[in-house]
Amino acid sequence: MYNFRTDLALERRDLYNKAHNLKNDIEGIETEEEKIDDNILVSRVKITNEKGEEAIGKKKGNYITVDVKNLKIANEEEIQKTSEVVTKELKALLEKHIAEKDSILIVGLGNIYVTPDSLGPKVINEVDITRHLLEYMPEVLDKNTREVSAISPGVLGTTGIETMEILKGIIDNVKPKLVIIIDALASRNIERISSSVQLADTGIVPGAGVGNARKELTENTLGIPVIAMGIPTVVEAATIAADSLTLFIKKAQENGESNDFLNKLQEEDKYQIIKEILAPEEYNFIVTPKEIDSLIEKMKDIVARGINFAIN
Amino acid sequence: MYNFRTDLALERRDLYNKAHNLKNDIEGIETEEEKIDDNILVSRVKITNEKGEEAIGKKKGNYITVDVKNLKIANEEEIQKTSEVVTKELKALLEKHIAEKDSILIVGLGNIYVTPDSLGPKVINEVDITRHLLEYMPEVLDKNTREVSAISPGVLGTTGIETMEILKGIIDNVKPKLVIIIDALASRNIERISSSVQLADTGIVPGAGVGNARKELTENTLGIPVIAMGIPTVVEAATIAADSLTLFIKKAQENGESNDFLNKLQEEDKYQIIKEILAPEEYNFIVTPKEIDSLIEKMKDIVARGINFAIN
Amino acid sequence: MYNFRTDLALERRDLYNKAHNLKNDIEGIETEEEKIDDNILVSRVKITNEKGEEAIGKKKGNYITVDVKNLKIANEEEIQKTSEVVTKELKALLEKHIAEKDSILIVGLGNIYVTPDSLGPKVINEVDITRHLLEYMPEVLDKNTREVSAISPGVLGTTGIETMEILKGIIDNVKPKLVIIIDALASRNIERISSSVQLADTGIVPGAGVGNARKELTENTLGIPVIAMGIPTVVEAATIAADSLTLFIKKAQENGESNDFLNKLQEEDKYQIIKEILAPEEYNFIVTPKEIDSLIEKMKDIVARGINFAIN
Amino acid sequence: MYNFRTDLALERRDLYNKAHNLKNDIEGIETEEEKIDDNILVSRVKITNEKGEEAIGKKKGNYITVDVKNLKIANEEEIQKTSEVVTKELKALLEKHIAEKDSILIVGLGNIYVTPDSLGPKVINEVDITRHLLEYMPEVLDKNTREVSAISPGVLGTTGIETMEILKGIIDNVKPKLVIIIDALASRNIERISSSVQLADTGIVPGAGVGNARKELTENTLGIPVIAMGIPTVVEAATIAADSLTLFIKKAQENGESNDFLNKLQEEDKYQIIKEILAPEEYNFIVTPKEIDSLIEKMKDIVARGINFAIN
Repeated sequence: MYNFRTDLALERRDLYNKAHNLKNDIEGIETEEEKIDDNILVSRVKITNEKGEEAIGKKKGNYITVDVKNLKIANEEEIQKTSEVVTKELKALLEKHIAEKDSILIVGLGNIYVTPDSLGPKVINEVDITRHLLEYMPEVLDKNTREVSAISPGVLGTTGIETMEILKGIIDNVKPKLVIIIDALASRNIERISSSVQLADTGIVPGAGVGNARKELTENTLGIPVIAMGIPTVVEAATIAADSLTLFIKKAQENGESNDFLNKLQEEDKYQIIKEILAPEEYNFIVTPKEIDSLIEKMKDIVARGINFAIN
Repeated sequence: MYNFRTDLALERRDLYNKAHNLKNDIEGIETEEEKIDDNILVSRVKITNEKGEEAIGKKKGNYITVDVKNLKIANEEEIQKTSEVVTKELKALLEKHIAEKDSILIVGLGNIYVTPDSLGPKVINEVDITRHLLEYMPEVLDKNTREVSAISPGVLGTTGIETMEILKGIIDNVKPKLVIIIDALASRNIERISSSVQLADTGIVPGAGVGNARKELTENTLGIPVIAMGIPTVVEAATIAADSLTLFIKKAQENGESNDFLNKLQEEDKYQIIKEILAPEEYNFIVTPKEIDSLIEKMKDIVARGINFAIN
Repeated sequence: MYNFRTDLALERRDLYNKAHNLKNDIEGIETEEEKIDDNILVSRVKITNEKGEEAIGKKKGNYITVDVKNLKIANEEEIQKTSEVVTKELKALLEKHIAEKDSILIVGLGNIYVTPDSLGPKVINEVDITRHLLEYMPEVLDKNTREVSAISPGVLGTTGIETMEILKGIIDNVKPKLVIIIDALASRNIERISSSVQLADTGIVPGAGVGNARKELTENTLGIPVIAMGIPTVVEAATIAADSLTLFIKKAQENGESNDFLNKLQEEDKYQIIKEILAPEEYNFIVTPKEIDSLIEKMKDIVARGINFAIN
Repeated sequence: MYNFRTDLALERRDLYNKAHNLKNDIEGIETEEEKIDDNILVSRVKITNEKGEEAIGKKKGNYITVDVKNLKIANEEEIQKTSEVVTKELKALLEKHIAEKDSILIVGLGNIYVTPDSLGPKVINEVDITRHLLEYMPEVLDKNTREVSAISPGVLGTTGIETMEILKGIIDNVKPKLVIIIDALASRNIERISSSVQLADTGIVPGAGVGNARKELTENTLGIPVIAMGIPTVVEAATIAADSLTLFIKKAQENGESNDFLNKLQEEDKYQIIKEILAPEEYNFIVTPKEIDSLIEKMKDIVARGINFAIN
């Protein structure tokens, strides 16, 4: 399969269509867009059969991307508005899989000590939890309050334990009806960094986007439906370089400087060779806006509020 | 039972002996002190039978307190030295309960977002983990490397799940032979804040010191030996006030101003009434040094290094 | 002068009136209250002459306190509403001292690395600055934009330089018409911690509340009007203990246990003696809610938005 | 002049020599290397005349680079050793410019809220300051203690004030004999990120490496000698992409795929065009290792200790 180097179904659809010079989606993939206002765009990709699955390497299911422009300079009002769009989309997904008051476990993947990877744990700190109150102080809550619990399991490099092993134990004890997982994703497009949320009802494979495959977190492995909320926070350095090269060659070709070598080069995947050129063994280099710390704070507000209003 | 308002066995022993005007320990309690240098003091309290248990409200077992003076101005060398003392004491405790290469799970209790409660999660971030390497890259490790994993389960108020429920699931999957738990404690003595480590092979009840009892984390509940490393990071405001009042009255009595009311008052426990006076419903007030942020950083180095050299 | 152990004019007025059994304010002090809603209360204390100055140890001028109840559980909407109240009061004070578009320098006192002292620097990070844009990119701004600059000078213990020395040099170069200073205050009342803002047009003496006097920051020393926005973030531990003792004795007296010693004691200031009992030399102990980290974040939003809407 | 896109004199020398196919340094540039151990390398570049200045675009003076390999996995001992190398080099530079007990002002440039830019302020928090003690408590210090003060002036985007304007005011009041400035640099080489320190006695132009020129901070503008300690913490994304492209073409040429277009392309500077392809208007994209947060912590220890032992 083509190496998309993005976790976003929307970007994969675009890359697939471009690579095959398609104007319309193939059978098995359905897309639609909804422009909320000048800054907010909702795109929905639905994969309906195995042909669609194979084409873009994503499981059958619903993938909704909420893009927000200019989050860097967004004010409180725009953050609130975006969170309301997330609430609406999340609510619609939840309704497809569980009943109104079914219990939910929210999982924040990532490492609180690594800024671009800290979104999951930060959201967990802000979501409204009810499970302990229902158990110890039910009198303070409305009687049909939904049971909500949450966990930040940490990352394999810090715990030595697969996320899946940790979650399985917790799900066995807590017995939720559905899991919502928040995770940092890799994207192809630097403009999407911490400016998009992808909601998917197909679960996720943690770390898939940056090359460190882990056991998948899906209904298959966890036994209950899994909604993934993924936020692109990095682009791999080699991706940027390879994409730059492609654009560079295209520009040269447009200027009439086409030649056999360039034409051949243009069709190849430059990613792997650039990865070898770039990568010192020790580090995992990423491209990130200098303002990532404050972008993460804003995105945390959008996701946490989006969840709180959808589930309570 | 007397309300000691401290999690430290050493302070409880002192309070007990003082309250009963004892010069020597009662049967069932054995203590010894070892002065390492001008700044570091090791105190060992051993509770050997039920009489000892009842007297100070702590389970049979070993309680070692490492006190370090002037941590606020301690330099790198002193931090290193203290961590070596912790290593030695921890190693001795481990040898009493498991074999040299038996697997260990390290648990950092507490809330990373609340400074005086953040020590556990911060230590977890620094301990040397091997379990994932043993599974995926055994070739990079010495062949008789001990299996070490770690987890920061979060706090009930953030997760809605009892720590015990989380740990049980993990222990079932990871199957360690022993658990080391790091936790922030309450102390009676403000000079001990973030300047002492208590090692105990009896496990702990999280949050016991500040009034919010949780299910205990002991060999009883977890099925394997539990070593607790507790670091005092707070004194309750009402404790400070009650202790001040006691000292105040004592001073008045010494100055010949004794009278029936004062004498009676001196024998009573002023804590509960002061707690009522002090406590607005919403908050949990604590006394902490202004420098708590930097003290926690230093204590984190002492505990993390102390563990790393003891287990590897 | 009486040791009020609070920086809030409102608390000093209350303590003064209580100590002198006054029902009404003395000449030289005028007060009024405005209840905005169930959670927000505005109190205005105006000191009009030297008699008022002497009584409560605060300079002639206006002191406005905005109290917000239950900030711990306040949602986004309540934070916004409180910030609007701060905006209104700040705007009124500004109009008393400068013209609509006169330039302003905003100063955030405190130490970013010490949680209860970090509010000033955190607010500076959020205020909208225009001075550099007016100089380098005037085309992006409205032509009658006010010139706003900002600085976090750090604290004497970290810089070795008096705040006054730093600000003087900057004011000489930047030449603002007014300074707004944000500072953490000490309060008498633990319920006020990070739940009140005092606005005063009299400037401040940094650190006055917790015993470490510094050179004053006022129109006298800086040459331009100084508006101080002070937020109580700590109560001294000795204050809590002394106040507890006072309440304790009062309760005893009410129960008919009055006697000469108690009566005498009740009239004395217990603060100094308790301070000696409590204070180990090395540390500055404070009382703070366990939730201080998140309270500071919320208060930062209130103050930063309050300023941004008042000055732009 | 050639756009080196690096602040390191050492990298510029290498790029210059390579571009001109030089084996030896030109007249006006002298270099030497000293291997301290397997992990630490010291390189000294001395620019002795205007020819050297012009060649690599750096002022006459001394540029010492301390490179440390594998800082990511460095332990306490290696950090200490590196800091000792920094101490030795800094001491040698200081002796060239001031007498043993002359007063020093330490300046930490950068933004504490932007991880890769936070090194300067973090170092300031750890350096040993004496100026306030010499003034208020001289009895606690040795009588020939050097006067040391420090400041983190913030960044133009947060303060609206040029760093130079802030420092001038402070230097006028504090009157130090020399300034040491700590700053984050841009490098060409991703392996150098937070793994090198450049010491230079020529001062610096803040932000030069990432395209946002500011007024220079040199003896010219500040009136006293300026030692700059620069630590590479970022590589610009466009730099990575352009360098990848150069390497890519070189590889193609080596494989006999040379052709006129490629040959011509190889000689051009691809940076500017790639910058246009890459850069969305809003953001400043940087390449950084995922582990930048912990690398910054380690580098902070190296620099702060390096300074503390050199100046006291």
